[in-house]
Amino acid sequence: MAVATQTQTLEQLCINSIRFLAVDAVEKAKSGHPGLPMGAAPMAFVLWDKFMRYNPKNPKWFNRDRFVLSAGHGSMLQYALLYLAGFDSVSMDDIKNFRQWESSTPGHPENFMTLGVEITTGPLGQGIANAVGLAMAEAHLAAMYNKPDAKIVDHYTYCILGDGCNMEGISGEACSFAGHQGLGKLIALYDDNHISIDGSTDVAFTEDVSKRFEAYGWHVLHVKDGNNDLDAIAKAIEEAKSVTDKPTMIKVTTTIGYGAPNKQDTAGIHGAALGADEIKLTRENLGWSHEPFELPQDALDHMRKAVERGAGYEDEWKKTFDTYKSKYAKEAAEFERYLTGELPDGWDKVLPTFTPEDKGLATRKHSEACLNKIAGVLPELIGGSADLTHSNLTEIKESGDFQKGAYQNRNVHFGVREHGMGAICNGMALHDSGLIPYGATFLIFTDYMRAAIRLSALSHTGTLWVMTHDSIGQGEDGPTHQPIETLASLRAIPNLNVMRPADGNEVSGCYKLAIERAKKKDPTLLAFTRQGVPNLKGTSIEKVAKGAYTLVDCDGTPDIILMGTGSEVQLCVGAAEKLSAEGKKVRVVSMPCLEIYEDQDDSYKESVLPKAVTKRVSVEAAASFGWHKYIGTEGAAVCIDRFGASAPGATVMEKFGFTVDNVVATAKKLLG
Amino acid sequence: MAVATQTQTLEQLCINSIRFLAVDAVEKAKSGHPGLPMGAAPMAFVLWDKFMRYNPKNPKWFNRDRFVLSAGHGSMLQYALLYLAGFDSVSMDDIKNFRQWESSTPGHPENFMTLGVEITTGPLGQGIANAVGLAMAEAHLAAMYNKPDAKIVDHYTYCILGDGCNMEGISGEACSFAGHQGLGKLIALYDDNHISIDGSTDVAFTEDVSKRFEAYGWHVLHVKDGNNDLDAIAKAIEEAKSVTDKPTMIKVTTTIGYGAPNKQDTAGIHGAALGADEIKLTRENLGWSHEPFELPQDALDHMRKAVERGAGYEDEWKKTFDTYKSKYAKEAAEFERYLTGELPDGWDKVLPTFTPEDKGLATRKHSEACLNKIAGVLPELIGGSADLTHSNLTEIKESGDFQKGAYQNRNVHFGVREHGMGAICNGMALHDSGLIPYGATFLIFTDYMRAAIRLSALSHTGTLWVMTHDSIGQGEDGPTHQPIETLASLRAIPNLNVMRPADGNEVSGCYKLAIERAKKKDPTLLAFTRQGVPNLKGTSIEKVAKGAYTLVDCDGTPDIILMGTGSEVQLCVGAAEKLSAEGKKVRVVSMPCLEIYEDQDDSYKESVLPKAVTKRVSVEAAASFGWHKYIGTEGAAVCIDRFGASAPGATVMEKFGFTVDNVVATAKKLLG
Repeated sequence: MAVATQTQTLEQLCINSIRFLAVDAVEKAKSGHPGLPMGAAPMAFVLWDKFMRYNPKNPKWFNRDRFVLSAGHGSMLQYALLYLAGFDSVSMDDIKNFRQWESSTPGHPENFMTLGVEITTGPLGQGIANAVGLAMAEAHLAAMYNKPDAKIVDHYTYCILGDGCNMEGISGEACSFAGHQGLGKLIALYDDNHISIDGSTDVAFTEDVSKRFEAYGWHVLHVKDGNNDLDAIAKAIEEAKSVTDKPTMIKVTTTIGYGAPNKQDTAGIHGAALGADEIKLTRENLGWSHEPFELPQDALDHMRKAVERGAGYEDEWKKTFDTYKSKYAKEAAEFERYLTGELPDGWDKVLPTFTPEDKGLATRKHSEACLNKIAGVLPELIGGSADLTHSNLTEIKESGDFQKGAYQNRNVHFGVREHGMGAICNGMALHDSGLIPYGATFLIFTDYMRAAIRLSALSHTGTLWVMTHDSIGQGEDGPTHQPIETLASLRAIPNLNVMRPADGNEVSGCYKLAIERAKKKDPTLLAFTRQGVPNLKGTSIEKVAKGAYTLVDCDGTPDIILMGTGSEVQLCVGAAEKLSAEGKKVRVVSMPCLEIYEDQDDSYKESVLPKAVTKRVSVEAAASFGWHKYIGTEGAAVCIDRFGASAPGATVMEKFGFTVDNVVATAKKLLG
Repeated sequence: MAVATQTQTLEQLCINSIRFLAVDAVEKAKSGHPGLPMGAAPMAFVLWDKFMRYNPKNPKWFNRDRFVLSAGHGSMLQYALLYLAGFDSVSMDDIKNFRQWESSTPGHPENFMTLGVEITTGPLGQGIANAVGLAMAEAHLAAMYNKPDAKIVDHYTYCILGDGCNMEGISGEACSFAGHQGLGKLIALYDDNHISIDGSTDVAFTEDVSKRFEAYGWHVLHVKDGNNDLDAIAKAIEEAKSVTDKPTMIKVTTTIGYGAPNKQDTAGIHGAALGADEIKLTRENLGWSHEPFELPQDALDHMRKAVERGAGYEDEWKKTFDTYKSKYAKEAAEFERYLTGELPDGWDKVLPTFTPEDKGLATRKHSEACLNKIAGVLPELIGGSADLTHSNLTEIKESGDFQKGAYQNRNVHFGVREHGMGAICNGMALHDSGLIPYGATFLIFTDYMRAAIRLSALSHTGTLWVMTHDSIGQGEDGPTHQPIETLASLRAIPNLNVMRPADGNEVSGCYKLAIERAKKKDPTLLAFTRQGVPNLKGTSIEKVAKGAYTLVDCDGTPDIILMGTGSEVQLCVGAAEKLSAEGKKVRVVSMPCLEIYEDQDDSYKESVLPKAVTKRVSVEAAASFGWHKYIGTEGAAVCIDRFGASAPGATVMEKFGFTVDNVVATAKKLLG
């Protein structure tokens, strides 16, 4: 197999450059995954060199092909490509600093650390599902904006995924959905190296992956020698591009750690440095005479042609866009607004407001009204439910269903695929084109999609998570469907705002903040009731902006503060009335968003929850976990620290103590 | 289609009895899902009447066939079957109390509410994955205990699942695994009714499910008319039983809400009562002249033959078991111990203890030692990792790999399928035969399997969740792999003990409690470090049993209490030394399990965390969320309330302030 450097073709030099950057970086860090980059270097080279359209000097050029390394542990593959292709975000020093503090080359690709990395990957299966979202965003925008004489949205989404990605259920969900939707511009290259960390995939994974993808409705190809047959790889990608009504999965059979004579094709090279001896042998074996981090100039020169090529692609596109702008000024303006991330002036005027005289409704009903009002002024709003559209009330009534042949529509039926939905929404947001995706299910089923929600917070995706049936008040479905610990578990996630509004005004206020936050590329989770709640006196859109605020107050220093969220704020108000009638000084604090409240300055916090008032009661039909920060050691929580039960919602609420009388009793016990 | 009652066959009478029990119960409750029971009644009848071996008067008879209604929203199907077959757990009154407070007929099947319900279902896809676990347990016990002349373990696992189950990724993970393992006694009936809540499955789910299951290595059959062709259903089940080296999926095409003239085959009958008018028409259409909750005696008499049949099955098995006992006393004794849920006397003597002089190790290394010691005395321990065996260190060295043809082995390679693993472990536990399953991955990936972990807590499964790489101390993999909010989010789950031991003794202590708890049928999640930690002075197996305890104390009332868990307890100890040297009175509290601590009486709690001491510092390399309950309003948390970063573990820990010096500084700030 040994080939002297000088006799290697330019392509081999490029491919081996990728391999040795990975080998040497992992070796220097004594940490990382060299196996995948070594095996997948040929397909990655062919893809990036011969097919992918991108501009290294403007990684954010809108019409670039998107690339996702779903097998994120092979991050050095992506860093090597970025470096070789001339991206400024990854220098040779950065590669030498692989996996070190604050480097642009962290252990797994992170979009917020490295320009040119579209998607944060590592948790397996997410990347391919994100790629489905990217392809959906492209299809949607193309259907919305392209004109016969000016195609301004026209790119592919490529994804390299591994065995691990294919074992994860999330990839199955998303790929079944992609097949259903016929996303023809999604092309996945499956690095079929038949090795996972536990050894040969024979120990756990012997299904026929190609057949499964065929069952999903994908176009499936197979490159039998992904190590050496570059023509076959190129032909497969060509063919994939030519099939426009189905996504394509190209199974590329490779050897993990290709070139390392003793370690290739073993789990030993999956996630550990090769060691000096094996690296020496690998250099000999692949005829590589260069020092670590030293590359043949020919390879670098060749790969760097991407810079000129990329500038050309962007120039060409700009011309198209200029034509578009001159002919379709209105659409162009809207599209440009998308790209700048701005909201139209006064968009939030559509949000409804209420008085206590207005009929009480479930907050999910208010959510439906807001979503539809917002959809009317923000055409970038697109999303749907995991098969609970008419329970979550998330249909955009002015639009049809997003389906093959009708990609311009904005109602997405994700199917019973919460996790896939989450990652697809993240992918749509990370398309970075101003779309505001939303995904909906019952609050309890955030458990199914938690990894995707976490990634929305970590990787700064402007997604809305619309969650209904937010407490035991949902009733008859019982404890499998009743959130208890769910709010706490979501509030604990950094950079995720969890909002639980009490009534119509607060719902409007929450949507206002959630939309603004989405445009700033961060996610919000909204929790809504199944059951009706009254419109409370004193709520407003504006007040929600502080996260928590005094809803009902007394004269002077309160004897006690009752605080609550969502459907339990009304209990606080009711209890305050009774206690006040008995001469107690009571304040009620509505807390629709603890995270926003935490961001307020100390003087505001002191004005709402004065330190001097130590008698405090929290009321939330959920676990007490996390509430002691607000109620302190002398406070009490009206809460449910066990699983719920199946019965009509009102019965369940009453049985577990979510009544005005119990709040009053709890307060009195504290007051002594 | 109308057929007068008198002309109906006995089989039709039985099937329509199931249908109308569902229709009438949902109507009375004004809540529930009649559609599935009406459509799936024929297959359920054939299965329960002609194939399934169970004993209604002893639902826990060991060798019963297991039945799982994965489409748990169709719970009335199961309650109707239990009632008709003569189980005492479901009376006609119970059926009339469907979905009411404390009834044995909750909204979704709950194993802890209704004897005869094996598995709590409702969250879609879990049930079929649990069924894989049940079938694995059967295969394992059969391989361990059966003798050529006495088969004491010999039953099938049947599962009815729906479109929703098949859309969920978890079912794909588990079924791919089941195909790999060739679990021939697993038979799934797929209620192919092509309707989900959002309408026709055409809106989201058009894949070829049968082909996908073939790709998984399943034997796949199709009953084209599942509404009427009982022979075809029976033949398919016969054939499924005859195929012993593959699981079988029988696609049974049905009509949801069969018999309701206007609502059948629509989403309208999926999850709502039919209403009086449609019920009247359905009665006419199906020729059903009985009043609500009134059944033809012939049908009842026929179905109740299950009682006599079941007694016979159990008698027959008892004879086999007696033979077994006489010939294989040792195995029989062990097997009987399994069934009683007892632990052998002194089993915990094998757990290692340590002194501060013993070399410090990562707690995952201690976990490996414990698991292996325990495996030596508890052959019922079986489990493995989601492709991280040699990172989680969860291999039982005295055993081989659980694989097709080697089911006696105890090391399971779950593949990169965390969610599937979780539900499979739950299924093994709910086989109710004394097995103690464990599932392992990185702590962060509990996010992928959270719904299964929650169900382990809700449905009382004695599972161990072995989670390693439990903080930012895991290092280079970066924020996608570093838990922050994970411990808090797990602690918030009711009935789940989360344990994070500080050193070798605490690891042994945690395993002791976790195993005892598993035998009492409740789960424990164990969080272990990747990095080494010293063995601390004063730790012991016994002390862990209080959840939290004073590890280092001072004379008199402490000025300050430092409390921590896991790898951060050493920082508390180090800080206490420094502060003490400066004359401060410092107590260190180690808190390996907050849930167990919460169960202690007030006097113990006061002895550990006296109310008078308000200067308190928590130290945990995780989110502060939840810690204010212990540190109070005047305390401070040394914590990380943002996502982590990629760099060597020691660097990350230091950069984020997890150092003795920072704990000292934080304490001093509090002390003023």
